[in-house]
Amino acid sequence: MATKSWTILDTATNAHVDELALGPENVGGTARGYSISKRTLRGGVSEGVDAIRVDNGKLAFEVLPTRGMGIWKAWLNREEIGWRSPVRGPVHPNFVPCSEPGGLGWLEGFDELLVRCGLESNGAPEFGEDGRLRYPLHGRIANRPAHRVDVEVDNETGRISVTGEVDETRFLFHTLSLRSTVSTQVGESKLQIRDEIINRSKRPASAQLLYHINFGLPLLDPGAEFRAPVDTVAPRDPRAAEGIESWTRYAEPLAGYAEQVYFMELRADASGQTLALLRNADGSLGVSLRFNNQQLPCFALWKNTAAIEDGYVTGLEPATNFPNPHSFEQSQDRVIKLAPLANYEIDLQLEVHSTAAEVAAVEREIQTLQGDTPPDVHTQPHHGWCR
Amino acid sequence: MATKSWTILDTATNAHVDELALGPENVGGTARGYSISKRTLRGGVSEGVDAIRVDNGKLAFEVLPTRGMGIWKAWLNREEIGWRSPVRGPVHPNFVPCSEPGGLGWLEGFDELLVRCGLESNGAPEFGEDGRLRYPLHGRIANRPAHRVDVEVDNETGRISVTGEVDETRFLFHTLSLRSTVSTQVGESKLQIRDEIINRSKRPASAQLLYHINFGLPLLDPGAEFRAPVDTVAPRDPRAAEGIESWTRYAEPLAGYAEQVYFMELRADASGQTLALLRNADGSLGVSLRFNNQQLPCFALWKNTAAIEDGYVTGLEPATNFPNPHSFEQSQDRVIKLAPLANYEIDLQLEVHSTAAEVAAVEREIQTLQGDTPPDVHTQPHHGWCR
Amino acid sequence: MATKSWTILDTATNAHVDELALGPENVGGTARGYSISKRTLRGGVSEGVDAIRVDNGKLAFEVLPTRGMGIWKAWLNREEIGWRSPVRGPVHPNFVPCSEPGGLGWLEGFDELLVRCGLESNGAPEFGEDGRLRYPLHGRIANRPAHRVDVEVDNETGRISVTGEVDETRFLFHTLSLRSTVSTQVGESKLQIRDEIINRSKRPASAQLLYHINFGLPLLDPGAEFRAPVDTVAPRDPRAAEGIESWTRYAEPLAGYAEQVYFMELRADASGQTLALLRNADGSLGVSLRFNNQQLPCFALWKNTAAIEDGYVTGLEPATNFPNPHSFEQSQDRVIKLAPLANYEIDLQLEVHSTAAEVAAVEREIQTLQGDTPPDVHTQPHHGWCR
Repeated sequence: MATKSWTILDTATNAHVDELALGPENVGGTARGYSISKRTLRGGVSEGVDAIRVDNGKLAFEVLPTRGMGIWKAWLNREEIGWRSPVRGPVHPNFVPCSEPGGLGWLEGFDELLVRCGLESNGAPEFGEDGRLRYPLHGRIANRPAHRVDVEVDNETGRISVTGEVDETRFLFHTLSLRSTVSTQVGESKLQIRDEIINRSKRPASAQLLYHINFGLPLLDPGAEFRAPVDTVAPRDPRAAEGIESWTRYAEPLAGYAEQVYFMELRADASGQTLALLRNADGSLGVSLRFNNQQLPCFALWKNTAAIEDGYVTGLEPATNFPNPHSFEQSQDRVIKLAPLANYEIDLQLEVHSTAAEVAAVEREIQTLQGDTPPDVHTQPHHGWCR
Repeated sequence: MATKSWTILDTATNAHVDELALGPENVGGTARGYSISKRTLRGGVSEGVDAIRVDNGKLAFEVLPTRGMGIWKAWLNREEIGWRSPVRGPVHPNFVPCSEPGGLGWLEGFDELLVRCGLESNGAPEFGEDGRLRYPLHGRIANRPAHRVDVEVDNETGRISVTGEVDETRFLFHTLSLRSTVSTQVGESKLQIRDEIINRSKRPASAQLLYHINFGLPLLDPGAEFRAPVDTVAPRDPRAAEGIESWTRYAEPLAGYAEQVYFMELRADASGQTLALLRNADGSLGVSLRFNNQQLPCFALWKNTAAIEDGYVTGLEPATNFPNPHSFEQSQDRVIKLAPLANYEIDLQLEVHSTAAEVAAVEREIQTLQGDTPPDVHTQPHHGWCR
Repeated sequence: MATKSWTILDTATNAHVDELALGPENVGGTARGYSISKRTLRGGVSEGVDAIRVDNGKLAFEVLPTRGMGIWKAWLNREEIGWRSPVRGPVHPNFVPCSEPGGLGWLEGFDELLVRCGLESNGAPEFGEDGRLRYPLHGRIANRPAHRVDVEVDNETGRISVTGEVDETRFLFHTLSLRSTVSTQVGESKLQIRDEIINRSKRPASAQLLYHINFGLPLLDPGAEFRAPVDTVAPRDPRAAEGIESWTRYAEPLAGYAEQVYFMELRADASGQTLALLRNADGSLGVSLRFNNQQLPCFALWKNTAAIEDGYVTGLEPATNFPNPHSFEQSQDRVIKLAPLANYEIDLQLEVHSTAAEVAAVEREIQTLQGDTPPDVHTQPHHGWCR
């Protein structure tokens, strides 16, 4: 049989694999040059975090079931793709005070390459009329542990996948689950994500999902640029408006730099497929995201070119909504509506481009989608996009 | 010696038994047909939860030291007694945000057959004049781990007991402990609970305790009924008042059903002993609770016949008080007053009745206590019982 | 080589030593009569707390990497130095609701001999104008786990040290670390602490640190006295003002005693070195703290002679500030200002004196620093010291 699978954990059967190390020698078949391993981190705020490492021979990445199936870091030919957060992680959810009154506790666990923000909500914290926190910053899903994780290998095609299920449930309120599969092909420099948001309730539900995908050096460097087939772009706030003239270009590290965020809608092909690119200054290295803007109609670009020590980083953020407070997004009809027991599917591909030719090819592809009409650039926050 | 005991954990000596499996072959003596085991759950929000399973040959149940000595589920002849919460538990306290500003985080850990609500308070959350949470929903005790757990077996009489001690302490504020023993007899379909609330302080203290005892299918089915020797009953709120005509009868699962709660005082024998029964529609299966209304003078019935997926469930809730905000219960003199170093004892028995004859016998017993005077049924919330 | 070292944990390399037991037989060299061990506590709220015990042959103490390198207890010739908190600890940070809306959750983890209060802030909780918690009581550092811990022994001089690093980081807000070394010499009755507060950010930062050093029986007994070269002392509040006449003397345990706190500035020698002493009633036992008032310019004395069961205890608290709400201390210029990437160093020595002669010698030393000018005793709260 070509496909083999391993259950890493399953609370339904109390199954749990403490350590795992797989390669062609264990799996059999014809595929070669890959490895899969699982470990549990020890010490500090990482105590108890499970990490599954997939190495396809070219691209390696670590998935964090304990943190909602986020991707901690990736490596292309052993060069790290990700960023250096001042937070030393990965951080176990127990050490992330998501529910603290001010709603910003999520920031204490933020150090990953790819963090999902959702499911009930994402974006800025929101408070009720009583002044009490209703929706914490970026929601809960990144700080919820998977209750089931499976690894699968096709030992002929060399396809490797990790699937996890994560609940975000509050009795009487919501019963949402994320079912996430990240997969890759031996020898390729990309990974694919297929996520499903599941309403396990017999009542209608709503949801939001934003992919906070973050890069620092070497992908982000002074002079690096963001590229996408932009239809409309607008600064989130006056601070971002200050930088609108050079919104696609990244500056050098600057201590005390205050973040700038741009909201946009992208153009796509007839089926909705679109992409975005971050390329370094000399165009020799890039990372592209491919997704469908029917699934992910909103895009935010987070520029945080602070000092290296404070996290020199940019976030490319395809999402179901803009990361505003939940009630504003609801008023703008940018929440997913889920019928009883219904699902919402999202596909996302991340690819690292390690030659100038590859980067240039992606740029041409973006230019084709952009077409002859330049983007509509708002120099001030756009009504209906920001509160 | 007839009685043998095992210390499962004791923080005072740093003793901790990771796995335990006991039966007549280990224990010796003449009692037969039982087993006791202890395991630690792995993965998801259950990671690290200790569970002690007692199987007396007829009735089995699992005690959760990590969750304040709650009872997760029970099984009669391997048929599950309990309910299917949309929360996949048992949930480790670390994943229950009891202290979140809105006060409802307790709901994220709610999936047990028997959950204690207390000790400082139970009931609806309460906020100070400054708007900040003072008493979270249903208190803290269900999310506090035992610091000492012992198992005891009388290998002649076949009596098995599990005793745990749980602290709910805040320096300068309160120093409360729960000392709980759940016991059963080989071959019987019932279990007994003996709880002590202990004021370990030299200052006076107050306390509350409610037993949130929850049943779904097959005990709760459409047409199932609640029976008790009711002296007075009143709906908690307008929503419950809507259903007062059929308050003792259960409907079929209905998506979006909003919970209905009824408060009552029960009649009892001269010593205060009373009981309550849930029987299924055809009277072939039932569960009774026996307790003393001098210890537990208040009773709440929680009807939540929502969709199966959302937790089709009812809660029978004998308590020291009604589950209103703490200050209201205090104003009505429904908090336990504990002198320095004093205890408050509570006894409770849960029995499963698996034949129509057994169920009918309990119904007759209730009828005797009810006597010729029908209950005083308030059709609207009752002054002094609800805020 | 005279110096040997062991890394107990290091998240950077995922190193973690579960159990450790060291003595001269493992370490070699000429030093004799000491032992070092590491264990992880199990059960209840202590589950997962790492404790490192150092026994120099005369003085033993336990360091808690999981609780910000606090010192749980000490023993002189096996007699316990510390106090009996009603909180049964040590308490894992997971069970301490530091972020609860009321800001007092820290009290649920309070049972140590030496607890650090900081780093962002310490003192009474403070709330924003929106009513939401900004600074919880005594800060976060005591409930943050070390990410690196090393033990070092000089096997000739008999010097033993434990060094730990603890982060208190919130992305975009602050990136503070504590680097703490506690060390002792074989056969001596004292220990030394060298702490560094590190601003790992390229932005300026501020910090506060208070050492909450707590003693009960037998050091604190009825008639025990506090001694220090006091320049100025003032009660914190009207409650403390009630006791100003006898502020240096301790009463017998009294149920319901409300804490009294005195703020003071101490006199010091030309280099800033000063000391404080707690001596028991008959002067046969004492503990002194030595520190530099350029590093720790403020001192608070906490008297809490409540019932034994409620924690008969006093706290000697050298600090960078008085434990008032953060904004008040800021307005009085009593926060540490840290330039980008700068450090702040603090040295502190704790010594137990077990003979009347030793105690008397320390008293004479204090008298010398006091000189002929008696302290300036304010009978009411002092403007600028209390809000």
